[in-house]
Amino acid sequence: MHVNVVLNKTTSKDYSVIIGPLEKLVFETKVMIITNSTVAALHLSNLQARIEAKELHTLILPDGEMYKNFESLNLILNACFEHRLDRKSILIAFGGGVIGDMTGFAASIYQRGIDFIQIPTTLLAQVDASVGGKTGINNDYGKNLIGSFWQPRAVYCDSAFLKTLPKREFAAGVAEIIKMAVTFDKAFFEWLESHDLFDEDNIKMAIHKSISIKADVVSQDETEQGIRAVLNYGHTFAHVIENQTHYTTYLHGEAVAIGIMMANALAQKLGLLSHEEVLRIQALLERYALPTHYAIDDLETFYDAFFLDKKSANDKITFILAKGIGGHVMRNNIPKETVLEALKDLNA
Amino acid sequence: MHVNVVLNKTTSKDYSVIIGPLEKLVFETKVMIITNSTVAALHLSNLQARIEAKELHTLILPDGEMYKNFESLNLILNACFEHRLDRKSILIAFGGGVIGDMTGFAASIYQRGIDFIQIPTTLLAQVDASVGGKTGINNDYGKNLIGSFWQPRAVYCDSAFLKTLPKREFAAGVAEIIKMAVTFDKAFFEWLESHDLFDEDNIKMAIHKSISIKADVVSQDETEQGIRAVLNYGHTFAHVIENQTHYTTYLHGEAVAIGIMMANALAQKLGLLSHEEVLRIQALLERYALPTHYAIDDLETFYDAFFLDKKSANDKITFILAKGIGGHVMRNNIPKETVLEALKDLNA
Repeated sequence: MHVNVVLNKTTSKDYSVIIGPLEKLVFETKVMIITNSTVAALHLSNLQARIEAKELHTLILPDGEMYKNFESLNLILNACFEHRLDRKSILIAFGGGVIGDMTGFAASIYQRGIDFIQIPTTLLAQVDASVGGKTGINNDYGKNLIGSFWQPRAVYCDSAFLKTLPKREFAAGVAEIIKMAVTFDKAFFEWLESHDLFDEDNIKMAIHKSISIKADVVSQDETEQGIRAVLNYGHTFAHVIENQTHYTTYLHGEAVAIGIMMANALAQKLGLLSHEEVLRIQALLERYALPTHYAIDDLETFYDAFFLDKKSANDKITFILAKGIGGHVMRNNIPKETVLEALKDLNA
Repeated sequence: MHVNVVLNKTTSKDYSVIIGPLEKLVFETKVMIITNSTVAALHLSNLQARIEAKELHTLILPDGEMYKNFESLNLILNACFEHRLDRKSILIAFGGGVIGDMTGFAASIYQRGIDFIQIPTTLLAQVDASVGGKTGINNDYGKNLIGSFWQPRAVYCDSAFLKTLPKREFAAGVAEIIKMAVTFDKAFFEWLESHDLFDEDNIKMAIHKSISIKADVVSQDETEQGIRAVLNYGHTFAHVIENQTHYTTYLHGEAVAIGIMMANALAQKLGLLSHEEVLRIQALLERYALPTHYAIDDLETFYDAFFLDKKSANDKITFILAKGIGGHVMRNNIPKETVLEALKDLNA
């Protein structure tokens, strides 16, 4: 199975997402694999055996979101210089979203841009992070606030890597799958309600469907001037939760699950979702043991934190809300009181 | 006068280079001026008086190529975060090539890319660096090895700023003007032979002509897959000279002047330029007191340094050579011996 990501720009070339067992990759140029210590221990020799290149180098970074920073970015860039990678060289991001985002960012600024390939090893990265070309690092001010749009040359999604994934991380990826179903595809949501994603055939199908949705959205709006922002459903809230819990309590997908519930409470208050629909989405999230509740300490502080988020331009917050299951709407004119009331109801 | 830079990409918007007195600039968004201490002392209040914005901030960096590094980049990014610039905010690069390259790079990676405007205050930046969207910083491995392609929203070239420019810096800009005439436009070269660029009307005309040539080349090849590389005429040699002299002996344009002479010696050896043409180009460079000779300490070491340059892919060096005055050719198959002989002749 594969999905084509078709882009409008002449310099962002179209690329394929290949879903299936990873086969031999042959390059005539220098190649460097960027991975982390966890993935390296499990799968690196397997990947190295499948790659033929002019020179093959590997850089192993420590594992974790706290290493998604300028220091790691510089480790990648310095390794590129040490091995004298040139403009035709290729980086391979081999890991989850953190490795993918940092490798893509390094590729985008090394010698003003070289190619990179994504081989995501987590479900979250396979269904979401590795497709679409968003790259970046975190800093003291927040997540992904420094980065670029830089499309990979290809993405290889092999579900074999998911077998070694902890159940909690698997579920975090499911949250992003549910996110796409709720906002874009009612039939897919209903399919999810009646299929178990721990089944291998089912997860392959869900990966394919999620990537197809994402590729379609990215093709329409590569740099998030419009519809691409819908993929941030749940994320405006999730970023505040992650920030307040210092990125240690929840995995990104878990925070998104809670963020979806918060967005839904607001959507229900605005008459966009019925109570029954809210419960159906909650039930699907909880089936994968995803958290659906977060105790907000102080509502005003929580609200103010939205304005630290990069998605706010000119002091207006854009909320991405489900409009029935399978639909979406973007609103930047919701009164503060309405948002606070929705969160208060949820907090009660 | 103005020149339109027409680009193919849908996300790199076309933009104008406005040549003439700077008029009032009005913005509905937050704006931050990035400049250096030298330019700030001479012209900052003048610029600030002409800008109307939602909020106007200013960051003054130390002056000099040695500050074109990660630390300065982070100073710019942190100032963006401190003032809570959003995705609609605009950076203004107010200075020479160093300020322009760093500001453009910061703009390209702050929140995955915001707009910036170039107001170049040196001749070199007006005729070359500020147009075309090459951004970057230096590091231990060389010049501009980390960066991006990021086009400005507009470029304003006001020759009034050139009045405070030291004569040596003015001449360094003239080297880039001569570079474009030699490789692209014989009539312009002949016009330069018969006109004094210290005359204000003449320099305005030369700026306009140079920008027109550059805009045309960039429009054809924004990311330097082909013809844009011709703008590196003289630069392959210049980068080695700058590196060997630790960027302290020569201004960039001065190193380019010497590099042009080295490229021409090679072109003459290959029958692409006549001895008379070489002398005409040398005479034009020397009229502006530009250096045309560099004593190479060791030819082998000099040659090896080409391979540290980012323009080399797969261990082949591409030389940009003049083919008669007004023409150019790119060659990646010149034997090492031929290059060494040409440099040896020049060194004799």
